[in-house]
Amino acid sequence: MAGTIPENYRDLFTKKAFGHLATVMPDGSPQVTPVWCDYDGTHIRVNTAKGRVKDKNMRRNKKVAITISDPENSYRYLAVRGGVAEITEQGADAHIDLLTKKYLGKEKYPYRQPGEIRVLYKIRPERVSTMG
Amino acid sequence: MAGTIPENYRDLFTKKAFGHLATVMPDGSPQVTPVWCDYDGTHIRVNTAKGRVKDKNMRRNKKVAITISDPENSYRYLAVRGGVAEITEQGADAHIDLLTKKYLGKEKYPYRQPGEIRVLYKIRPERVSTMG
Repeated sequence: MAGTIPENYRDLFTKKAFGHLATVMPDGSPQVTPVWCDYDGTHIRVNTAKGRVKDKNMRRNKKVAITISDPENSYRYLAVRGGVAEITEQGADAHIDLLTKKYLGKEKYPYRQPGEIRVLYKIRPERVSTMG
Repeated sequence: MAGTIPENYRDLFTKKAFGHLATVMPDGSPQVTPVWCDYDGTHIRVNTAKGRVKDKNMRRNKKVAITISDPENSYRYLAVRGGVAEITEQGADAHIDLLTKKYLGKEKYPYRQPGEIRVLYKIRPERVSTMG
């Protein structure tokens, strides 16, 4: 299943399912945080603000992992290891609004800070495993 | 808050809250999986079977991270980076039964495989952050 998200797990991306994104710190230790995410048919997409720990980590080290659990059943999940294929500010504002629509049911991201620059990361799945 | 789990987040360990445990693969890339966990007052404890990917990872590289989200509110969570202070088979069977009681409400872990050796890992929190 390397490289593709199985059809029968793609429903996870239509639910308000958080991803748990692991990145690597400068000293090689892992870091993990809950994130909003979606899937564009090729890449898993996440979005954060420029300068945050995971932003810095993903710029330095493209290796990441993300697990997405079914909010209705914690024993059903998708675990992906992969690489950050693209980091871009282009479309990042529209993307955070898209995620806001999915997770909060609102049109505009309500937590934007003054001067904050949103960044979109496209994660290429390399090793995909499923449970449940 | 380095090294301690804030009192007002310890309730997470009494709920059926999954941890998302990140470990490091041999090539330095991260791996993340949902795990049962608890807290003994000093260490966050997880339990797996000998020979699994995360078992091998934690024996090779003691640096881990774990995030525990409130099952009633995904925006409230505890994010911990730390080190594996102890890896032991002693008490590991009793510990998986304790976790079974918490997560499944049963007395005995029902998924034990023939020949499986349970292992208990004690994670020392080093960097603790909270959200929500």
